[in-house]
Amino acid sequence: MKNNFSFVEKTVQIGESAPSPLFGLGEKNINFGKYFVGQSYLKPLNAEGVGIFNVTFEPKCRNFWHIHRGGGQILLCTDGEGFYQEWGKPARRLHPGDVVYIAPDVKHWHGAADVWFTHIAMEVPAQNSATEWCEPVTDLEYEKLFK
Amino acid sequence: MKNNFSFVEKTVQIGESAPSPLFGLGEKNINFGKYFVGQSYLKPLNAEGVGIFNVTFEPKCRNFWHIHRGGGQILLCTDGEGFYQEWGKPARRLHPGDVVYIAPDVKHWHGAADVWFTHIAMEVPAQNSATEWCEPVTDLEYEKLFK
Repeated sequence: MKNNFSFVEKTVQIGESAPSPLFGLGEKNINFGKYFVGQSYLKPLNAEGVGIFNVTFEPKCRNFWHIHRGGGQILLCTDGEGFYQEWGKPARRLHPGDVVYIAPDVKHWHGAADVWFTHIAMEVPAQNSATEWCEPVTDLEYEKLFK
Repeated sequence: MKNNFSFVEKTVQIGESAPSPLFGLGEKNINFGKYFVGQSYLKPLNAEGVGIFNVTFEPKCRNFWHIHRGGGQILLCTDGEGFYQEWGKPARRLHPGDVVYIAPDVKHWHGAADVWFTHIAMEVPAQNSATEWCEPVTDLEYEKLFK
């Protein structure tokens, strides 16, 4: 199993406040940017056997509600502070050292709190796996998490 | 896929010098201790889909030469400084942020340098996967790495 991406890293212009996460920042997340509110960065870490990516979210950046079909996903939090929320459940605050197992078919989102946040994301290998993207987490929903 | 271990953490008596690695120390690595020189600690991080373990090595601790059959393994280094070596090749120094992909059927070992070292280890899921343990890395072989 081999994912279709390049390991060549490019220099990215980022704000002076951008962090240096443990496993690197990578590039602006162009391909999936349309499924995020705010700016995220993506660094592929491994393509053989298990696809592993380092994902960094600027403050308040988060992805849309989405569902993994086929295989789930595992998050390993390394830097900053973030959120993970499953549909119909309260959001969970995430800190470095936290691990999240996301089962297939569970609608959820993840992203930063009001600071930078980085997690490693691991795809559980599965046949015909796919991600189904849903609606954004609105500012109203998101801002409630801080109250 | 679900590995057969408990997530219950027990209190372990460890030296005052034991570190607090990013994803936790866990327990003394009793089950696999016979395949290690020195003391290692094991903390299971995830059992669903992909088996993920946090492995911490005291200074100079290393595992025996071994071979993964079926699926390989991925190491994500988080704390300290260590080594990874494949049979017949020079050892590679490992630091936090380093990633190692270990292909199936490659004889290798990993462990600490002369300081504590922690990596996350991820098993690439595969049918009939197994680890074949070989001879220890002798003190003579190991000490050469520091010269």
